[in-house]
Amino acid sequence: MHAYRSHTCNDLKAADVGNNVRLSGWVHRVRDHGGVLFIDLRDHYGITQVIADSDSPAFADMDKVRAEWVVQIDGRVKGRDAALVNPKLPTGEVEVYATALTVLGAAEELPLPVFGEIEYPEETRLTYRFLDLRREKLHRNMMLRSNVVRSMRKRMWDQGFNEFQTPIITASSPEGARDFLVPSRLHPGKFYALPQAPQQFKQLIMVAGFDRYFQIAPCFRDEDPRADRSPTDFYQLDIEMSFVEQEDVFAAVQPVVQGIFEEFAPGKKVYSDWTKIAYRDSLKWYGSDKPDLRNPIKMQDVSEHFAGSGFAIFAKLLEQEGNEVRAIPAPTGGSRKFCDRMNAFAQKEGLPGMGYIFWREAEDGSGMEAAGPLAKNIGPERTEAIRVQLGLNKGDAAFFLGGKAENFEAIAGRARNEIGRELGLTEQNCFKFAWIVDFPMYEKTDDGKIDFSHNPFSMPQGGLDALNGDPLKVYAYQYDLACNGYELISGGIRNHKPEIMFKAFELAGYPNSEVEKRFGGMVKAFKYGAPPHGGCAAGIDRIVMLLADEPNIREVIMFPMNQRAEDMLMGAPSEPTNAQMRELSLRVAAKE
Amino acid sequence: MHAYRSHTCNDLKAADVGNNVRLSGWVHRVRDHGGVLFIDLRDHYGITQVIADSDSPAFADMDKVRAEWVVQIDGRVKGRDAALVNPKLPTGEVEVYATALTVLGAAEELPLPVFGEIEYPEETRLTYRFLDLRREKLHRNMMLRSNVVRSMRKRMWDQGFNEFQTPIITASSPEGARDFLVPSRLHPGKFYALPQAPQQFKQLIMVAGFDRYFQIAPCFRDEDPRADRSPTDFYQLDIEMSFVEQEDVFAAVQPVVQGIFEEFAPGKKVYSDWTKIAYRDSLKWYGSDKPDLRNPIKMQDVSEHFAGSGFAIFAKLLEQEGNEVRAIPAPTGGSRKFCDRMNAFAQKEGLPGMGYIFWREAEDGSGMEAAGPLAKNIGPERTEAIRVQLGLNKGDAAFFLGGKAENFEAIAGRARNEIGRELGLTEQNCFKFAWIVDFPMYEKTDDGKIDFSHNPFSMPQGGLDALNGDPLKVYAYQYDLACNGYELISGGIRNHKPEIMFKAFELAGYPNSEVEKRFGGMVKAFKYGAPPHGGCAAGIDRIVMLLADEPNIREVIMFPMNQRAEDMLMGAPSEPTNAQMRELSLRVAAKE
Repeated sequence: MHAYRSHTCNDLKAADVGNNVRLSGWVHRVRDHGGVLFIDLRDHYGITQVIADSDSPAFADMDKVRAEWVVQIDGRVKGRDAALVNPKLPTGEVEVYATALTVLGAAEELPLPVFGEIEYPEETRLTYRFLDLRREKLHRNMMLRSNVVRSMRKRMWDQGFNEFQTPIITASSPEGARDFLVPSRLHPGKFYALPQAPQQFKQLIMVAGFDRYFQIAPCFRDEDPRADRSPTDFYQLDIEMSFVEQEDVFAAVQPVVQGIFEEFAPGKKVYSDWTKIAYRDSLKWYGSDKPDLRNPIKMQDVSEHFAGSGFAIFAKLLEQEGNEVRAIPAPTGGSRKFCDRMNAFAQKEGLPGMGYIFWREAEDGSGMEAAGPLAKNIGPERTEAIRVQLGLNKGDAAFFLGGKAENFEAIAGRARNEIGRELGLTEQNCFKFAWIVDFPMYEKTDDGKIDFSHNPFSMPQGGLDALNGDPLKVYAYQYDLACNGYELISGGIRNHKPEIMFKAFELAGYPNSEVEKRFGGMVKAFKYGAPPHGGCAAGIDRIVMLLADEPNIREVIMFPMNQRAEDMLMGAPSEPTNAQMRELSLRVAAKE
Repeated sequence: MHAYRSHTCNDLKAADVGNNVRLSGWVHRVRDHGGVLFIDLRDHYGITQVIADSDSPAFADMDKVRAEWVVQIDGRVKGRDAALVNPKLPTGEVEVYATALTVLGAAEELPLPVFGEIEYPEETRLTYRFLDLRREKLHRNMMLRSNVVRSMRKRMWDQGFNEFQTPIITASSPEGARDFLVPSRLHPGKFYALPQAPQQFKQLIMVAGFDRYFQIAPCFRDEDPRADRSPTDFYQLDIEMSFVEQEDVFAAVQPVVQGIFEEFAPGKKVYSDWTKIAYRDSLKWYGSDKPDLRNPIKMQDVSEHFAGSGFAIFAKLLEQEGNEVRAIPAPTGGSRKFCDRMNAFAQKEGLPGMGYIFWREAEDGSGMEAAGPLAKNIGPERTEAIRVQLGLNKGDAAFFLGGKAENFEAIAGRARNEIGRELGLTEQNCFKFAWIVDFPMYEKTDDGKIDFSHNPFSMPQGGLDALNGDPLKVYAYQYDLACNGYELISGGIRNHKPEIMFKAFELAGYPNSEVEKRFGGMVKAFKYGAPPHGGCAAGIDRIVMLLADEPNIREVIMFPMNQRAEDMLMGAPSEPTNAQMRELSLRVAAKE
């Protein structure tokens, strides 16, 4: 017999009754039922019930063990009485009558119980992560993550992609965040950087003639902590393809992502019609570039009905160019109580309030009437025109925000979420995807300058010609995948022509010399025969969070940092030794 | 038709003749055969021949393109005349008659040609890595590496292992090399470390109750450069299992490694009898703990024949305890010329020489005679006893080294390699494996102290009891896999009991407080129910080097550093900005 086990704790079935077996695992729970001892013995695979009565030579040893000791049990498989069968356990038809118990690893008193999944402060959970990970939920989350990544790889291979590893100790690759630096011992005063993403390397792989690259890639960003992101590193499914247009990337990615969601979200509907929405429309309709399409509410411009109307605030707003009034339709929201609640929501968000109209049964029994202060101010004809435009009816409501779109769109988006949730309009147990396309290449910064609005490496739609016109009217071949209100993927068709790249940077105020300095390797590569190429990157932590339905990224990472970017278990970061600092030719600067 | 291609450059066959097609790729070679232009068009998948004559509307454009331009070809598939079929190319039966050519990416004059694989200085190759990677050999090596890693993963999954990612920005994990440090911005003066290996994390994963872990893991060591290792990072197939003994690890690993070698070394024999050799025997027989078993030579102790003999140097040596005389048998090496060459080899290695005996046809025709100065000194009986012990015969030779084993064993091992190679005894085109086991737990350092000889985390054979005796007699459950003279894998059954761990460290001079400080997380974990566990790590770069038959690690890494740990293409390491140094509270120390 094997030194530690003949079976795992998930193996034994009724057919094994009568056999002598050996199991090893953790003592999940001990119970004493009047002279009969029960242990739920747990391993990675499952749980098996072990018993001993006072006739068993194992009884005395079993009486000593405590929760989370690692023990080895020798015993005989017994069938359980029909009444005692546990249908929830794969091993629920049997138990093991222990004849010997060997302690493989004792446990001191636990700072954090494993059995029972009681809530504990996060600092305790992180300090004793090895105990927390034994709990059912985290164990399940880690296996989910491992299985998701495995499935991603298989699906990418099936589509002819090859995985290549790109450097981790490398040069700075500006992606808009802060680099982690690594001092060089051999080159005093010089530093490597950890890659914010393998963006430049994957483009170089295309220039090097490999056709379809992917990588489950660690990315490093020295970010200020937030619940939904790691303060140090995260993983992305990084993809790049040569000789492709935007639609080719979509066609390669959809089966992978859709397949993953179908495989790992059993019982949830995964919509397969991935609509394409222009960035500008997404903001207009949903107040967000990562819309939650489970929510059917679509906002509309209703400026025409307020222009010159009796509602002075909006009427006056609309006299200025660039202002508009946006309506958020709220089907079934037609009660003053609900409208007031949403008004309070808007005030909490920092607005003076949110105008509304709702339609109800007229008090005099004559049919439908529109209620709310706005309706009175603009009169019945305009009110009715709004109702018709929004397709609303008795029992429904609409909310209104006015001004410059960029000033109210984010709040409008949040109000839309709130309305969808409050009214139960947002579909549950499903995943809805949309490609957000046609991102503007440039934007005007607060000080009136032109800068890249997103990725400077994307190809401008219309190529070099387009860059000779108004930069603010140039769209990029750039896209995001939105799912249930999150951005899951971001990508683009790359600018592979040096002359277009230099021009694109010039418009954003970067002279050629600066481009050569910051992206020298890539620019050089483009001068020696670069293929058209494009790709994207999918956030793996985010996908697993969605599948596990976890709001906190630390629930889907094996050994996460805390919110202060500290590893509580291993004790990082820590003070270096003087010898280390000398070797690196570094000193810590005195505090100012 | 697709914007860039209807087929890859490896697709077109005789069955496609007559079809209109579109191809995209790099201009591998242009030839002008008297008014008919030929382009070998190359992509990731293969090469297709494109032609244009002066009747073709593409002729003028084709006349302009140069090597490594990226072009798109529209044309018609034509069959080649039987005499012109190229059987080496999958597309060799056809060619494409070009009707249009579009330049997708032009190339400046090349600093490094792709066609022809001409030798170029390494600095040029690294600076223009994207060109070097287009060459056939590097392209093949990178695909080999990608496929090897894919196969490893599949084989590990098939055996029930799960891949988990462990932290990269973390605490120092002393593995005997130098850490790379990462300054913390949020905690001024403190540093993270990049892991030298996920050793502690994989053990924590076992303590956390996951049964079979693996990871294709990046490991970071700030090493002084050497041709066969990367100066910054390398990848290992990292494995750990719970509830196992040494044999279980061997049983899990052999099918994976053997399978990989069989899959990726076609035409080479992969031996399946993986013998186990004790560390001490490996040094004795092969002069190395990573023996090349393709070489059949096995060294032997022949001290008894020299003790008290007429060869004064050895006789005197053997009067001191601890000295011995080792013989390297050299079948078919029985000529003075060869023996003198080996003697010269020993002198080059710093020895005064290497004694030898060889057996030849007696000059007087009386049969076999032993020749060489040693034979004369020790006389015919001892000489004959040596011949019989070593199983040698006429035409063979033996070489002798004496002294303390640790002083001559390494040279003896190199001499054995040399003899095997020179005499053609070493089998070609095969891979031979052996597990080296029973490593000593401790060794005496030069200053007479007891220290760990290898991995301090391994379980001592005999457990706590063994540690109460002579430490130098304690073996560890620790093992290496040797293949063709390289160490491919290293591993051990771990010490999972805190009391044995503290005792083991105490013997090596580390007080408990020091152990708690350096390995606090792991020691803490072992106090709360740790299972018996063990595993190993396989060097992926090394395995790919063996399979690709490449002596330099840079030939199997996509974007390697040069020997001064610089990235020539991306320009790393580089000077940080003042702002970065301020944010990290660091100053570069003035040169001393």
